[in-house]
Amino acid sequence: MLFGFNGPRRIDRAPPIHTRPNAYYPSMAAPAHAPITVGIAGAGFAAGSHLDALRRLGTVHVTGVLASSPERTAAAAERLGADPIGTLDQLLEADVVHNCTPNDVHASITEAALDAGVHVLSEKPLGSSAHEAARLAAAAGKAGVVTGVCFNYRHFPLVQQMRGLLAHGDDGPIHMVHGAYLQDWLLRQDDWNWRLDSARGGTSRATGDIGSHWIDLAQHVTGDAISSVTAKLGTVFAERIRPPEGDRQTFARGDGAGIAMPVDTEDMAAVVFQTEHGVLGSVTISQVSAGWKNHLVLEVDAGESSFVWDQEQPNDLRIGRRDGANRDVPRDPSQLRPEAARLAHFPAGHQEGWPDALRNLFVDFYSAVAARGRDETYEPTFASFDDAARVQAAVEAVVRSSDSGTWVTVDEIVREVSV
Amino acid sequence: MLFGFNGPRRIDRAPPIHTRPNAYYPSMAAPAHAPITVGIAGAGFAAGSHLDALRRLGTVHVTGVLASSPERTAAAAERLGADPIGTLDQLLEADVVHNCTPNDVHASITEAALDAGVHVLSEKPLGSSAHEAARLAAAAGKAGVVTGVCFNYRHFPLVQQMRGLLAHGDDGPIHMVHGAYLQDWLLRQDDWNWRLDSARGGTSRATGDIGSHWIDLAQHVTGDAISSVTAKLGTVFAERIRPPEGDRQTFARGDGAGIAMPVDTEDMAAVVFQTEHGVLGSVTISQVSAGWKNHLVLEVDAGESSFVWDQEQPNDLRIGRRDGANRDVPRDPSQLRPEAARLAHFPAGHQEGWPDALRNLFVDFYSAVAARGRDETYEPTFASFDDAARVQAAVEAVVRSSDSGTWVTVDEIVREVSV
Amino acid sequence: MLFGFNGPRRIDRAPPIHTRPNAYYPSMAAPAHAPITVGIAGAGFAAGSHLDALRRLGTVHVTGVLASSPERTAAAAERLGADPIGTLDQLLEADVVHNCTPNDVHASITEAALDAGVHVLSEKPLGSSAHEAARLAAAAGKAGVVTGVCFNYRHFPLVQQMRGLLAHGDDGPIHMVHGAYLQDWLLRQDDWNWRLDSARGGTSRATGDIGSHWIDLAQHVTGDAISSVTAKLGTVFAERIRPPEGDRQTFARGDGAGIAMPVDTEDMAAVVFQTEHGVLGSVTISQVSAGWKNHLVLEVDAGESSFVWDQEQPNDLRIGRRDGANRDVPRDPSQLRPEAARLAHFPAGHQEGWPDALRNLFVDFYSAVAARGRDETYEPTFASFDDAARVQAAVEAVVRSSDSGTWVTVDEIVREVSV
Amino acid sequence: MLFGFNGPRRIDRAPPIHTRPNAYYPSMAAPAHAPITVGIAGAGFAAGSHLDALRRLGTVHVTGVLASSPERTAAAAERLGADPIGTLDQLLEADVVHNCTPNDVHASITEAALDAGVHVLSEKPLGSSAHEAARLAAAAGKAGVVTGVCFNYRHFPLVQQMRGLLAHGDDGPIHMVHGAYLQDWLLRQDDWNWRLDSARGGTSRATGDIGSHWIDLAQHVTGDAISSVTAKLGTVFAERIRPPEGDRQTFARGDGAGIAMPVDTEDMAAVVFQTEHGVLGSVTISQVSAGWKNHLVLEVDAGESSFVWDQEQPNDLRIGRRDGANRDVPRDPSQLRPEAARLAHFPAGHQEGWPDALRNLFVDFYSAVAARGRDETYEPTFASFDDAARVQAAVEAVVRSSDSGTWVTVDEIVREVSV
Repeated sequence: MLFGFNGPRRIDRAPPIHTRPNAYYPSMAAPAHAPITVGIAGAGFAAGSHLDALRRLGTVHVTGVLASSPERTAAAAERLGADPIGTLDQLLEADVVHNCTPNDVHASITEAALDAGVHVLSEKPLGSSAHEAARLAAAAGKAGVVTGVCFNYRHFPLVQQMRGLLAHGDDGPIHMVHGAYLQDWLLRQDDWNWRLDSARGGTSRATGDIGSHWIDLAQHVTGDAISSVTAKLGTVFAERIRPPEGDRQTFARGDGAGIAMPVDTEDMAAVVFQTEHGVLGSVTISQVSAGWKNHLVLEVDAGESSFVWDQEQPNDLRIGRRDGANRDVPRDPSQLRPEAARLAHFPAGHQEGWPDALRNLFVDFYSAVAARGRDETYEPTFASFDDAARVQAAVEAVVRSSDSGTWVTVDEIVREVSV
Repeated sequence: MLFGFNGPRRIDRAPPIHTRPNAYYPSMAAPAHAPITVGIAGAGFAAGSHLDALRRLGTVHVTGVLASSPERTAAAAERLGADPIGTLDQLLEADVVHNCTPNDVHASITEAALDAGVHVLSEKPLGSSAHEAARLAAAAGKAGVVTGVCFNYRHFPLVQQMRGLLAHGDDGPIHMVHGAYLQDWLLRQDDWNWRLDSARGGTSRATGDIGSHWIDLAQHVTGDAISSVTAKLGTVFAERIRPPEGDRQTFARGDGAGIAMPVDTEDMAAVVFQTEHGVLGSVTISQVSAGWKNHLVLEVDAGESSFVWDQEQPNDLRIGRRDGANRDVPRDPSQLRPEAARLAHFPAGHQEGWPDALRNLFVDFYSAVAARGRDETYEPTFASFDDAARVQAAVEAVVRSSDSGTWVTVDEIVREVSV
Repeated sequence: MLFGFNGPRRIDRAPPIHTRPNAYYPSMAAPAHAPITVGIAGAGFAAGSHLDALRRLGTVHVTGVLASSPERTAAAAERLGADPIGTLDQLLEADVVHNCTPNDVHASITEAALDAGVHVLSEKPLGSSAHEAARLAAAAGKAGVVTGVCFNYRHFPLVQQMRGLLAHGDDGPIHMVHGAYLQDWLLRQDDWNWRLDSARGGTSRATGDIGSHWIDLAQHVTGDAISSVTAKLGTVFAERIRPPEGDRQTFARGDGAGIAMPVDTEDMAAVVFQTEHGVLGSVTISQVSAGWKNHLVLEVDAGESSFVWDQEQPNDLRIGRRDGANRDVPRDPSQLRPEAARLAHFPAGHQEGWPDALRNLFVDFYSAVAARGRDETYEPTFASFDDAARVQAAVEAVVRSSDSGTWVTVDEIVREVSV
Repeated sequence: MLFGFNGPRRIDRAPPIHTRPNAYYPSMAAPAHAPITVGIAGAGFAAGSHLDALRRLGTVHVTGVLASSPERTAAAAERLGADPIGTLDQLLEADVVHNCTPNDVHASITEAALDAGVHVLSEKPLGSSAHEAARLAAAAGKAGVVTGVCFNYRHFPLVQQMRGLLAHGDDGPIHMVHGAYLQDWLLRQDDWNWRLDSARGGTSRATGDIGSHWIDLAQHVTGDAISSVTAKLGTVFAERIRPPEGDRQTFARGDGAGIAMPVDTEDMAAVVFQTEHGVLGSVTISQVSAGWKNHLVLEVDAGESSFVWDQEQPNDLRIGRRDGANRDVPRDPSQLRPEAARLAHFPAGHQEGWPDALRNLFVDFYSAVAARGRDETYEPTFASFDDAARVQAAVEAVVRSSDSGTWVTVDEIVREVSV
């Protein structure tokens, strides 16, 4: 089975490169395969952005959206210009389900899809805990469908350029990986969102929600996995103010009125780690750093070059050199390696952004679905359930290290949660 | 008639602001109107990017693409995942035509559409000369359909933020407007493209092709029109090498072999201008500036603030201040004025780019089409045919000033070409 | 005679490179020559910064400062920690005079020094008009002393790197030169300074005061001279408010009270030019652009590379490339050409700034003085009186072009003012 | 006694502000006090930069330099344009000694100065170990002279601006402090320098040499001390190649030939920490990160604002905001708080750099010396011996944490090393 892994997938340092010709503005075109039907579970920010990207594919047909109640489904369908879906069973009549529900609902939808033999592309996190994620990864291994997780930052052209250059080896061995993921949307005490409720968002917030993106990206780009961590979590407000009306949209802001709620998840985390290949690393994570909106920055130091990619300036890759000028690599399809160029749809200087990377993820996922349908081989870039379960084990290691004040290995979490 | 102007439209300094509620991630949703059919004329880069953006609208139906021959139509349809259209008459069965043909074909397609009572969204330039553009603007005034030109840079959120702030007046009166539009894709002698052939691309190249974008943007943002110019054009290569196989895609590069062709259009231009409101201005334009891919930068100096917007960093607006810190305004929907926020579909830090601005243009255009269908009033942001004709008159003034060595007024061109 | 030129000096494209060994942190050390005595005329910002840089040379002895009255001399001496000088004759007992007086006093001090056989380093402008500058240049040619003008921006390491790379030729021929010099210290109507009084500052303000720096830098770096211009000047305020107490320090700001004074000099200028080598150019100059403090940026476009140097980020040189990554060249002595490395005194990352460039200028000037004393040959980098007179002719051409609305050649000014 | 502390000095959150008037370009002038004599111990990069900055003070007299042998002293004196000093006793005839020797010599020179009643300004580290540093701090407490350590990064204007704003409190309480100090001058295996020899440089290299600067800066700016750490050190090369001729200058590079030497000090460190006030922190330190020359960046996250200061762009301070535009604060004396403005000697846009901060440090130190001479009170900014000893205890905690794999408190080191 193509996507059935029995354990954490070890990412090769030199993955086979796509041999598809590097057509210049290639993916205006839809992937050439039979129409595929897609149902979307969820009605928030993720559902809207998925729908936008799905429309760009051209040949995928969205059957509709399903939210947590008929009223919410109707409202979301109206707002998003999609059809409402009445029941989970009707959702599962599609070939593929996009799981855009809140974190605590992920598992039930995903498991229902796997049981029904429906391909699943899930928003992260895979599950609400490392244990649940491991269970879902195991189930996916047996289900025989295409399964993936939306670690969307993999799918920027210059991320694949960095990954390809590091894999190729001319820049020498990696000795350090570091960076940050900083946001400010939870800076104030009256900022409230369902993610603040650990019952719904999970026991780790800053690390689980955004740190997980950084961890996946670092592991994907370097082809190396975090093996042990020492870390400290921090929380600015012991209580936050929940608005009387309940939830607010992710990234929306409060106005001070509401009900005091205890906070048991972290606002920020500082992590030191080591990798399986013996690389030293660190990452700083925060949802309370004023002025940083979505500042995910990954820095990789290798023998000949250092690399810096900043998600908020996604069309530039900085390559540092010791004995010559530093380089600014533009997102120029004519300059990129094939696996990066195929993700760049517009000429250099015609900047692409977050929605374009999501679309790249979907092209990748539906290429895998189409290959499965034709019984062909396909080498995907997107995160597998196993990748995602491994990330959640690393998140769990961070939390435990902060609790215990000791180094924690990811493998001990993996062993504990494996089913 | 809503879009019928008899002369150059004077842009108001304080346009009425959209009263549509600023839904937070609003335009995942399609505009709520009846399905509209759209045919695309052309098969190059523009056609592909239009198709991509049209798909995102959700409720617009693309009937297909029509290229310059049945063979090219078939190839484009296959490549873009769209249906082929057999004839111009069939194209004109759609409600709307997107005119994505080469410059010298623009007029014939547009006129056919106007004659057929079909709405037209044309790629720039409106015509192949100031005279042709004026003729098309006059025809549009009589046609009773919605007409617009793709000056897409208007449709970035922070461009509208800058425009709104300047119109609001707190930053004081404008005294200088300056900037540049630099590219490098024609730097080498063996770079070839149909735009280098003045019979097809027009008598002005750097100014007509890219300078026109800058001129439109400056006029749109300041609500003020260029009235006179002194300028000098420059050409690096008297001859260029055309590849034996003929045309190359716009932005594609050569490999040295081919046929020497004389060049009678400019590679670069330096322009000083004055506006109707007495503002001093300058712009530097080049397609031969190494390392600059699509560097359109607009700087506006007003009494209290200066503004800098760089198309290659479109998610940041720099506002300079004399007596306090300079400001970096992020593309944060929650911080923007309503007319800018409605163009920002993702939270701050989730960067949007060139394709998103094109989509914003289309939402604006189809909102006007829908309003026309319902006989409602709508205040569009997109460029009218009159706006575009005025831009082409300014381009013509630049060319004449360089030829004559004197100041040339735009009004003398307007008077000469008006029909 | 080494520095006696009878006409504008033509800067060679490939100047002989200094053969002084590139000691790594060389110029902590003083130049190895006999003590030289220096007197400073003037008591403002320039005098203070000159004194600071002179002290760093180590072996130059400053005899004192002379201001416009005994009271001012005493106050300046006290403030600057230097000795007061009683009379012009006493000033001229020094080997060298630094002329840091207001513009309208430059000529009288410089001529007195030349008459007395004293070396002169003058602040710019050389004279208060192109005519006066030409007269001083002619006098310098006959005087047999070392004469120079403080166009200090030449003396940054990365400026010399850019100049050396362009002269070496690997980056291909230059086809365009452009840029800007923007400030904001005269943005408000109550900003006042002696430079606003044309009787004291000269008939051109923005162009004469700061545009002259840009013109000199462009000519120095490219080895090519501006030959003709078309330009427009602009003035924001027809009247400004002079504070009752009279002058304010350059760069100091007002508080609104005072006397209305008519303004007959420009706040801003937009210039298109051509050079003797047929290069196209443009520059935008302003003292009323909010948020720009001293934004001198020079961009040179050549066949293989473009260069951008921004005086406010002086430790970085951007080199743009068409077919590969753009380069950021740090001020790293170990990476620079010899003529640039000798100006870089600290390791890369230990940033140097404006005072360090001034010191480099003085090391250059005093090396010439020492060489003169030893009857040795020395190739200086600093601007000669002829260079400065040529710059003032170009400034005069800009003013006349704005007045006449025509192109004006610099040579016609040079012929008119030559003595 | 003014500078005699018995324990680590607790930095006040709201230090008294200098009452010296904020003259606009004030410190061209020398401090108004009697001439002070200064001897310099050492002959390397530090000695040269100290001499340069001392000359700018105007009224301090440098008696000469003393190196490790008469031959070296003579060569250094010649190179630096200073007088040679024959013996340590002769050095100690000066009022002040600048200790610019290699790390392992620091203690002996400093102790000799303290014994002789001579003021001492020492390069960092204070001693070759936390123990030695504590001993010197104790000795300083009893010596009755002015003592300080060259943590020069404190003395940039925008560092004091950040410190002043944080102390003033409008930006809210600090919750996180993070950043990096990255260099690349030891990236290659054949890069050699005495600092690689732990007997001379100390047992910690990356953390001790450069991390110590970051630690001091973070503590100084926040007024809060690191209390406990968990950390991991890393070493890229187990052996390095020492050139046959012996030492190379700090920051100079190798050419491959030489003798293999074992390396027992770290190239890089990743540190998580907590402060006495309960703030979370992290810092990444490396001397092997290609392209980073001297990248010290300090980020402070507070309730209303985040602050970022990058030593390589020292004239800009970024202040991030949640609900409004981010701010770029220029080094504009007219905009800064008094304690920052007095360190800014040139108008905004006339950039100052590393040598200017060193000069600011010396002005501060000699103001303290002069105050001591006049028996006046003076509130210095420079680091005390106690501050430096505290920094070395934190460095020792980092090393021990890496060895033990546990959290280590700084206080346990302080208790152990205190005398």
